[in-house]
Amino acid sequence: MRTIELNKRQEQILQIVKENGPITGEHIADKLNLTRATLRPDLAILTMAGYLEARPRVGYFYTGKSGTQLLSDKLKKLKVKDFQSIPVVVNENVSVYDAICTMFLEDVGTLIVVDDKSLLVGILSRKDLLRASIGKQDLTSIPVHIIMTRMPNITVCRRDDLIIDVAKTLIEKQIDAIPVIKETDEGFEVVGRITKTNMTKILVGLVDNEII
Amino acid sequence: MRTIELNKRQEQILQIVKENGPITGEHIADKLNLTRATLRPDLAILTMAGYLEARPRVGYFYTGKSGTQLLSDKLKKLKVKDFQSIPVVVNENVSVYDAICTMFLEDVGTLIVVDDKSLLVGILSRKDLLRASIGKQDLTSIPVHIIMTRMPNITVCRRDDLIIDVAKTLIEKQIDAIPVIKETDEGFEVVGRITKTNMTKILVGLVDNEII
Repeated sequence: MRTIELNKRQEQILQIVKENGPITGEHIADKLNLTRATLRPDLAILTMAGYLEARPRVGYFYTGKSGTQLLSDKLKKLKVKDFQSIPVVVNENVSVYDAICTMFLEDVGTLIVVDDKSLLVGILSRKDLLRASIGKQDLTSIPVHIIMTRMPNITVCRRDDLIIDVAKTLIEKQIDAIPVIKETDEGFEVVGRITKTNMTKILVGLVDNEII
Repeated sequence: MRTIELNKRQEQILQIVKENGPITGEHIADKLNLTRATLRPDLAILTMAGYLEARPRVGYFYTGKSGTQLLSDKLKKLKVKDFQSIPVVVNENVSVYDAICTMFLEDVGTLIVVDDKSLLVGILSRKDLLRASIGKQDLTSIPVHIIMTRMPNITVCRRDDLIIDVAKTLIEKQIDAIPVIKETDEGFEVVGRITKTNMTKILVGLVDNEII
């Protein structure tokens, strides 16, 4: 993939097709006082780049696609499985205090809570833990399942979901992380997590040409 | 700007120029058993797209640029001022308890701490507040300046800094937010904040064609 910038004549051709399409190559050439042969490379570029579409015996159409359409077509195909992080999980019966320690030790912003079968039952954000810790309770005696956000109020995604959909969900729901799950007969098995940190890394990867 | 995908013949030409460049159009045509005229549109596309460079009386060079170079050239120019959020600040003398309440009320992950002149003196992350709140202290009587990360250990950026540099800093320093500051004679005035949420929004904006 490669981006190109259009020259002045190509911009003129686009304008002509926008206003007059469908229009044949000959008619475009007439309007520019040029020969069909002169225009051939420009028309080839505009068609390849997706600006124009050519139909036999009809002529050129303007596709109406915006400048970064094809880039975003690629970006749109990125999948969760290629960018997800390892999930950090705690059992639903550990204390809030222990969960806070795990969060600091693992240096993550979100803990995923599982039951004894390792199936997803809840989520603990730093906010959940902070809210609990300013209460008057003894944090070592409260299990996390008391304070966690629990199923079915948890947003999950799957390995084959699109990065861009997950990014939109993170923004819309104002959350920092989403567990990546695999459906089993008994419930959701946790296979990863995807966060705003992953999204920031993707942005950096785009510029460093590591992605696409 | 527009991205294009190369066809098979264009890939062959690229390979030939990579291995034999500088090489004239005639020689490329010879190697492919085609006429120079047949190749003209392909060479035009490859040159326009930045893959090849042509020098009169010498021939075609391979530029060595990777596939998304020109896209990233655009991405690289995005500036902090066009994407930053409003800063949420607290005075250095408010209590840890009040700071936690502000964090919940404003729904942010990072508070920026200022002195009586509204100049930057520190940063409070959810982690800092969580660490303080699991201690045995009375949170209403400890001022935030006791627990905050303080100048000069704070990463800051300016309105004209590049988004991509800030994104890299967020990743490298493993932080969620960076204050946007303006230098004055007395210190740093806080004019914004930029976070991994902003970065995630930029990624979404790229796909929705709102950016570039």
